[in-house]
This record gives sequence, structure tokens and C-alpha cells, in this order.
Amino acid sequence: MNTRINQLYSYMDQHALDAVLVNMPKHVYYLTGFASDPHERFLGLIIPRHEEPFLLVPALDLEAAQAASEVKLIYTHTDTDNPYEVLKKHLPASIQTLGLEKGFLTVSRFEALSAAIGAARYADIDEPLREMRVIKSADEVVRMKHAVRIIEDVLRAGIAQVKPGVTEIELVAELEYQMKKLGASGPSFSTMVLAGEKSALPHGVPGTRQVRSGELLLFDLGVYADGYASDITRTFAVGDISEEQAKIYDTVLQGNLRAIAATRPGATLASLDQAAREHIAAAGYGEYFMHRLGHGLGMDVHEYPSVHGQNQELLRSGMVFTIEPGIYVPNVGGVRIEDDVLVTDSGVEVLTSFPKELTVIG
Amino acid sequence: MNTRINQLYSYMDQHALDAVLVNMPKHVYYLTGFASDPHERFLGLIIPRHEEPFLLVPALDLEAAQAASEVKLIYTHTDTDNPYEVLKKHLPASIQTLGLEKGFLTVSRFEALSAAIGAARYADIDEPLREMRVIKSADEVVRMKHAVRIIEDVLRAGIAQVKPGVTEIELVAELEYQMKKLGASGPSFSTMVLAGEKSALPHGVPGTRQVRSGELLLFDLGVYADGYASDITRTFAVGDISEEQAKIYDTVLQGNLRAIAATRPGATLASLDQAAREHIAAAGYGEYFMHRLGHGLGMDVHEYPSVHGQNQELLRSGMVFTIEPGIYVPNVGGVRIEDDVLVTDSGVEVLTSFPKELTVIG
Repeated sequence: MNTRINQLYSYMDQHALDAVLVNMPKHVYYLTGFASDPHERFLGLIIPRHEEPFLLVPALDLEAAQAASEVKLIYTHTDTDNPYEVLKKHLPASIQTLGLEKGFLTVSRFEALSAAIGAARYADIDEPLREMRVIKSADEVVRMKHAVRIIEDVLRAGIAQVKPGVTEIELVAELEYQMKKLGASGPSFSTMVLAGEKSALPHGVPGTRQVRSGELLLFDLGVYADGYASDITRTFAVGDISEEQAKIYDTVLQGNLRAIAATRPGATLASLDQAAREHIAAAGYGEYFMHRLGHGLGMDVHEYPSVHGQNQELLRSGMVFTIEPGIYVPNVGGVRIEDDVLVTDSGVEVLTSFPKELTVIG
Repeated sequence: MNTRINQLYSYMDQHALDAVLVNMPKHVYYLTGFASDPHERFLGLIIPRHEEPFLLVPALDLEAAQAASEVKLIYTHTDTDNPYEVLKKHLPASIQTLGLEKGFLTVSRFEALSAAIGAARYADIDEPLREMRVIKSADEVVRMKHAVRIIEDVLRAGIAQVKPGVTEIELVAELEYQMKKLGASGPSFSTMVLAGEKSALPHGVPGTRQVRSGELLLFDLGVYADGYASDITRTFAVGDISEEQAKIYDTVLQGNLRAIAATRPGATLASLDQAAREHIAAAGYGEYFMHRLGHGLGMDVHEYPSVHGQNQELLRSGMVFTIEPGIYVPNVGGVRIEDDVLVTDSGVEVLTSFPKELTVIG
């Protein structure tokens, strides 16, 4: 059996669970290799503590599951079955405590499940799944590097289209077209292109604002590819920018580099945030960096852990997260520089390699 | 108090609920006019049976809620509060039965809620909300017509870019750019452009397939605007098409028109599906129309009711759904023609007005 499922067997032993039911399609993929979107239908990986794990899938997905899943015991249900009754039929008789994803399962589904199964206790398995996911395997890192390579090619193609007069949404259209062309399954979040004063809005929405010379232009974009997300931000100068804008750029860049330099196993997540924030505050821009330093990255574009100044959790080799300090000065402009980083045994590997020196485009 | 909230008061009387808690942001919008995305934070509209309704919102959303909500009693919680304890403080003391959205609430949230509130019984309020939503108000119809007008303008702009050699994903990029430019909040589903043999795949994915002369080209697209969805499919001839392709087109068109002609209050949903399906079967293409006729449309792009051959539910004035028969012949091509229709007191109003006669483009 694969390592991940074995970790769940250990967890079940430690916590006296008789079985685990995994319903989130992403988690079924993570544990078996079978990716699917069952829509409203039941999809479950069931791991009984003392027996072989099995999949229960909609009948129409059987062939796809057989082709992709490492778990070879596969049962099916049809649209006229009650999938929870089918599940009960295949479960050992003596399930007292069942582990399931309480943060994913709706109350309706849980009621249908518990009516059929009737276990005495239901435990949440969010924690072991989160703990597994936070440490990326070599294979996951390969996939994430692929998603990063795509988004950097997309960004390269996108900035080639920048010239005064082009609008933010025209650039978004070009970027999202390139994502599809380069083989991404899609954007990992709403693609952001913000020009001039709009770059100072951390949650701005691209519109018909035109790119003009003498301004900052901020790109924040990512893709999903092979089930994993990338996420990068770069800010450019369109033509000549002011001294203040250049100073802001340099301050953010130094903050980004300091946080990366602080990244190594055993450091706290808080210390990275502080490394960037202290530099930015010392330059007089503390009040204009009003968000956390970054967020975990993996099968979700925002996942555990959160990289903020109060998070005393220690970095461990295999964690992947973003480092994205920013300064946003109303009417002057905003700069954010975001990299995706992997904690290694000896320090850090920066997965994003797009140049960060202040670059003039357009 | 507004009509929708009054309907919930009646439902509470009939079903002996002491209070109702609405958490789905779409439903809070539907009942109060306050649209928001609270992300992980608690957002709730609470309607105690014998008291005034109130909103409980994250503190940072207070001003937005005050500006937009028809419910004027608004409480807040901060990120350090347990929102369920705040909720309990504002609820009448004697809540025995609480109605909530069991198909939306996760088990984790429900456990936190019930630990704080400790009601004896929790009832599902899916049914009254679904029953309200299925009959569109005049205001909702105005919004849906707006979403339809946008998508038809988008389609018009998109087909102007069709010429042999352009790829499916280039057309998708142009269409999604036009959506943003024309003021939509975004696509209501993944925009579909399928050329030639790919038009015969009801769930095909746009790629780098080029448009060629002598083929069919299928567009299926929609937007969200002002909280409501549109959804339209048109199929075009690029240059001269074969006699069989023209026959398929005409058969689908007649099926579409027959289903529309059958639409009036009191008819069954099944009868519309049958009206289209019988015509298509008589022309010899029955096996190539392998999906339901349509689906409800409103705040969701796929919502209640389902328009299929076994649904004996009766049409009522105010229902809005799609009518989208199709024929998909492998290696010959596929045609689907989809309209959005409103059931009126006297029959039907077709909300989509984009021409349906076979049109040659490119």
C-alpha cells in the first residue's frame, strides 16, 4: 500500500478509528491517483482499520478509476442506489468510530451517511490530511515546478503585449489564453493586472483602465496544472517611473530577498514575515504593507500554513509557500513581488525564477 | 418586512420552527439585498419566529451591510470572537427547533453552531428557499434579461473573429475578454467553443483545434451579471457544410421550437423534453440526443428544476430554464441550440433572441 494510505492506518491506530472515509475529490486523488469530478454523486475512499482500502465510485467512472487508481478494490453505485447503503454493505460490521472530513461534508450528506452506517462516533480527519499535505513529496515538487514553468512562460508572453493604451482586461485575456495554450487546466485564481494608481489596491479588479507610460504595472497570476497550483506576482515599470516609485520597488525587493534568506528548517513562519516587514518599516513604508507575507501552496492555491507575523510554527523541509511582500501607496502606486519557495534540508529553493530586477516594459 | 422574509415567517409557523438561520451568501443576498463573500468568516441572517430578523456579519463588512441590506438590525463579530457565541447572545432564549441550510453547512460548522446554541432539533430549510427561488420576480427577470443581453453581445463580437485557422481557445479568450468589457462579473461556466468533430462531444474541452471551412462550430457560453446567470448555445456553419450537417441542424432547430411551443403553465417538464425528443427520434437521431432538455436558471447557472423526460412537475408562471436539444454524431459533428425561457401566465417568453436560422460565418 502507498505511503500516504499507510500514514492514515497509523493515525487510525493512534486514535482508535475503525475506518476512515475520504470524500473530497482532491483527497481521493492525493491518496489513490484517481482524479475525478463526481458532481453531486458519491465518491469515497474507505480505509477500514484491519482490512484493505476500497473505492466506491459512480458506475460510469469505473473504467477511469480502474485505469488511474492505486487502490485496486473498486465498488460502484448507480443513480438509483442509495450510495450510503452500498457503502454499509462493504464496510466491516463493527464500525464504532468513523473518521471523515467534517470541514467538507455537508450536514445533509452526513445525516444520510449516519442514518445508514450508525457509528457511535464520528471523528474529524482534517488534521492528518493537512499534516501530510503540508510536506510535499518529490513528485509533488516536480508537478509544482511544472505549474511554475507554465505561469512564467505565460507572464513572459503577456508582458510582450504591453504598450501604452492596452487595457488591463485585454492583458488578462492574453494571459488566460496563454495559460490554456501552454497546457494549464486553468487559472488558479482570478488573474490580476493592475495599472497606475490601481496597482495600490491589493484587491483591485482589472477593468478598462489603460496602461500609461510613467506608471507601475502589477501582474498577479497562477495556474493549476496536473492538480497543483502556481502563483507569482511581478511589478514592472512602464517607461520612466518616479524616484519614489523606484524606491518603493527596491524596498519591496529587499524585503522579498530578506524573507527568502531567512527561510530554512527550524525558523518560525513568523520570522520570515518579520524579516520582510522590518526592512519595509525601516524604509518608512510599514503602514503600506497591510497583508501577511504569504500562504501555503499545493493542491490549493491558498492552503495551510499561513505565513504571518504571529505564526510560531516551525518551517520543515518539504513545505511550499509564497513570499509576497508589498507596498501600496495611494495615488503613487503599488509594488508586490511574489515567489513560490520550497523549504529544503539545507535552506530554501526558490521555485519561481522570473527576474526580479526593476524592468522597464512597453 | 419584505415578501421573501415573510414567506419564511409563514413557513416557520407551518413547521413549528423557532428560528431560521441562513448562511449561504447567495441566500443572504436574495433575502436582504446584501451581497458579500465572507470567505471563511461567519455570515448569517437570523429570523426568530416572534422577533425582528437580524444580520450577523464580520465587523469589516458592517458599512457595506448597512448600505445594502433591507434588514436594518445588524450585529457584528470580530476575528477573535466565536461567532456562534455572539449569535447565541442575540437569539431568543427558547430556541427548540432551528431551521438551517443542511445542504450548505459543513459538519464542522454545524458542530460549532450546535455546541453554542444547543437546540433540540435542527430542520432543513432547503425546500422553502428552493420553492421561492424557482418562481422569479419581475426584478429577477429584469436582471436575467440583462445577463442575456450581455452574453448575446459577447457572442456577436466573438463570431466576428471567426475565420479558418483561428483556434478554439483564441475564440474563448476573445469571448471572455468581451464578457469583462461588457460588464459581466464573469463567465457563469467554462466557456465552450468546439470545432468540427469536437462539436460532437457534449463535454468537449476547447483546445488548439483550428476552425476549418466546411465544418460546424459550436459556442456554449454564459455570464453572471448582477447576481444572475445567462446561458446560450448557438452552432454555426463555417463555409459550406454537408447536406447531413444541414439536416442535423434543421432537426435540432425544429426540436428546440417544438419544446418552446409546448411551454405554458400546467404542462409537465417531461412534456417539453418529449416534444423535442420525439421530433429528433423521428428524424432518425434519437440515439444521438443523449442528455436532458435543460435545467433551471437563476442565481445559479444550473438550478432547480431539471427539465428531463421523467419530471412530472408542472410548469408555473415565473419559472426560468434552458431548452437545449442537441444531436452529436461522431465524425460528422454536433449541433446544440439553447435558449433561456420564462414561463408566463399565458405561455412562454424566450429571453434569448440571438437568431437561430442556420448561419454561415468565417
